[in-house]
Amino acid sequence: MKVLVINAGSSSLKYQLIDMTTESALAVGLCERIGITDSIITQKRFDGKKLEKTTDFPNHKVAMEEVVKSLTDPEFGVIKDMSEINAVGHRVVHGGEKFTSSALIDEDVEKSIEECFDLAPLHNPPNMMGIKACQELMPGVPMVAVFDTAFHMTIPKYAYMYALPYELYEKYGIRKYGFHGTSHMYVSRRAIAMLGKPAEETKIITCHLGNGSSITAVKGGKSVDTTMGFTPLEGVCMGTRCGSIDPAVVPFIMEKENLSTREIDTLMNKKSGVLGISGVSNDFRDLDEAASKGNERANLALEIFAYKVKKVIGEYTAVLDGVDAIVFTAGIGENSASIRKRILSGLENFGIKIDEEKNKIRGQEIDISTPDSKVRVFVIPTNEELTIARDTKEIVETEAKLRSSIPV
Amino acid sequence: MKVLVINAGSSSLKYQLIDMTTESALAVGLCERIGITDSIITQKRFDGKKLEKTTDFPNHKVAMEEVVKSLTDPEFGVIKDMSEINAVGHRVVHGGEKFTSSALIDEDVEKSIEECFDLAPLHNPPNMMGIKACQELMPGVPMVAVFDTAFHMTIPKYAYMYALPYELYEKYGIRKYGFHGTSHMYVSRRAIAMLGKPAEETKIITCHLGNGSSITAVKGGKSVDTTMGFTPLEGVCMGTRCGSIDPAVVPFIMEKENLSTREIDTLMNKKSGVLGISGVSNDFRDLDEAASKGNERANLALEIFAYKVKKVIGEYTAVLDGVDAIVFTAGIGENSASIRKRILSGLENFGIKIDEEKNKIRGQEIDISTPDSKVRVFVIPTNEELTIARDTKEIVETEAKLRSSIPV
Repeated sequence: MKVLVINAGSSSLKYQLIDMTTESALAVGLCERIGITDSIITQKRFDGKKLEKTTDFPNHKVAMEEVVKSLTDPEFGVIKDMSEINAVGHRVVHGGEKFTSSALIDEDVEKSIEECFDLAPLHNPPNMMGIKACQELMPGVPMVAVFDTAFHMTIPKYAYMYALPYELYEKYGIRKYGFHGTSHMYVSRRAIAMLGKPAEETKIITCHLGNGSSITAVKGGKSVDTTMGFTPLEGVCMGTRCGSIDPAVVPFIMEKENLSTREIDTLMNKKSGVLGISGVSNDFRDLDEAASKGNERANLALEIFAYKVKKVIGEYTAVLDGVDAIVFTAGIGENSASIRKRILSGLENFGIKIDEEKNKIRGQEIDISTPDSKVRVFVIPTNEELTIARDTKEIVETEAKLRSSIPV
Repeated sequence: MKVLVINAGSSSLKYQLIDMTTESALAVGLCERIGITDSIITQKRFDGKKLEKTTDFPNHKVAMEEVVKSLTDPEFGVIKDMSEINAVGHRVVHGGEKFTSSALIDEDVEKSIEECFDLAPLHNPPNMMGIKACQELMPGVPMVAVFDTAFHMTIPKYAYMYALPYELYEKYGIRKYGFHGTSHMYVSRRAIAMLGKPAEETKIITCHLGNGSSITAVKGGKSVDTTMGFTPLEGVCMGTRCGSIDPAVVPFIMEKENLSTREIDTLMNKKSGVLGISGVSNDFRDLDEAASKGNERANLALEIFAYKVKKVIGEYTAVLDGVDAIVFTAGIGENSASIRKRILSGLENFGIKIDEEKNKIRGQEIDISTPDSKVRVFVIPTNEELTIARDTKEIVETEAKLRSSIPV
């Protein structure tokens, strides 16, 4: 089975065609500047052969047509015909309270995704555009929606409710949902395998640290708490997001700076985080470099980020009443030895010790803790696309079996 | 030396006259409904004799006059003459970044307190009214300002900075300040004494759980982090305050409910917390009772509160890299065995075990942990007034010595 994985943003569309026999990507591609001028598609084949084309994508459908063209291109492509795509898996950011797992897309599912537009106005509408574009282009091909929030639907009520008037939850669904669920699920499953003990006995903290960062407490394979909340703004600070702050600061800044609700939202989401503190960059590599050259605010930004992650590790160790393994994943989590070191230093009494040499190894699954560390520390490259493809395959096959078993 | 301790609110004025020889209160009193009609003064003498009088307090000065009258009352009073009051200690909520300890009040100090009006608009102006009223009434009596924020001025920058644009810190002083400092200082010092080891080696988490709640990490006797922030809204949820939430929820609610900045502030400060969740009460005793009668939302409110405190205990155990003692104080912390049990249950692997029988004892300093608990758990009744009186005595005496040593 070949599964096409689609991650559609407002002006971008990421895709991978994955061969499920080997669970490897045949091609990985990206359409950029959809709906803007000078759109670009880039595609990299399994053998490294690259396609790059500047064209015009007035909408997601035209971009999807180009994706199919590129995948079937005689020179750069990987399949002869569109019919080789057996299923499509779509990343959908928000599944609200309805979706506790991935779902075969039908009219009801589409309606539910649309009902979450209000909860994820920046993400769900483009996700839906991706779905619509594929449906028009590949009628009859089964499609599955894989939700960023679904893995977190096991979080208990006392952990997902805010201490706000209860009516706000009933009226608008204001509660913690959590995001990055596909990544947390993938790396926590890998960690369970690496721990080599029964899943139900495991206690794991997964740190997805990238452009957006979230941390999840995983007990017995299930998410029991996560740092992102109603939106991806909550939790630790990030590249440009402030993370959790005193909520009274929000109206205070609005009054002082005469900002609208949209403007304060933009300030907190786009102008804050390590960029806001440092004034240098939202990229941790730039910050590392600036800090090493003596830039104090760049160093402060790194200190703040590491401190906030460390605090959550403590928090979730209490939530889980102990921890077997801490996992680092995503851009920063996988690649920054210096950030991992900053986060974990001063946790010796917590039973956490890392091997500084192993900590330097990049891009592979590795246990970087010392043999005498009570807590294992894993670096696990995340693979959200593979998780989406696996879920898609499983749901499509189950559905096919169910259908074939219905007596005519 | 007799020290009068004043805690002036917008419409209230609490006071205690403390005899520093015995460190005991001669009289404890309260003026209510200042600036409103039907003002009341109530005073309880050391021997239990009570005074209660309904009158009119158009302002704090008139109330202070009544305080002096009550303290010198031939039947209900404790001193013959106002001149027996050797010094006055004032609780001042916000000392900004300027005050790292208590300060003898002079023109400069007054100016600095006024400069913090913007940071604590509900607290510092009435605190100042209390100071002014005393100055007019008792000219020449030395007065000391004891700040709620001062104890937290040892918090390192990476812990007090928000990940917001740095200019907002420079322009408006937006950072974590922390509150309840006098209480955290008092109980952490008691805890150090109870631990019986050198102060600089101690790691303590102090949980001040009352109408407002905050938790502090105290390392070597110094505050290194605390849950309240720029305002007393941040941190765990409280009676009517939401505590930390996804900051993006703030503009979301404002838009949906068409609220102004003042209205959302009121919603988060006055209509949220355990009151908002339960719809029952902001009083934990009411919630306990409702929960025991099967009220699910009252039980949820208690679960949420306890869960949030538990998470901070984990957080600060990481910040301190271990913990010697956890202290419970203030209304709920001192009196609610059920809340303490909820908070600490499920932390056995953390090395925390409490003795359920000892946990039931009320109103005294007690170690409620079991002998095999790795972490000591103390209940310590707080005494902010005594701390204010001690600081006042010390500063006034030091000042007197300094003055007398200046060669004429």
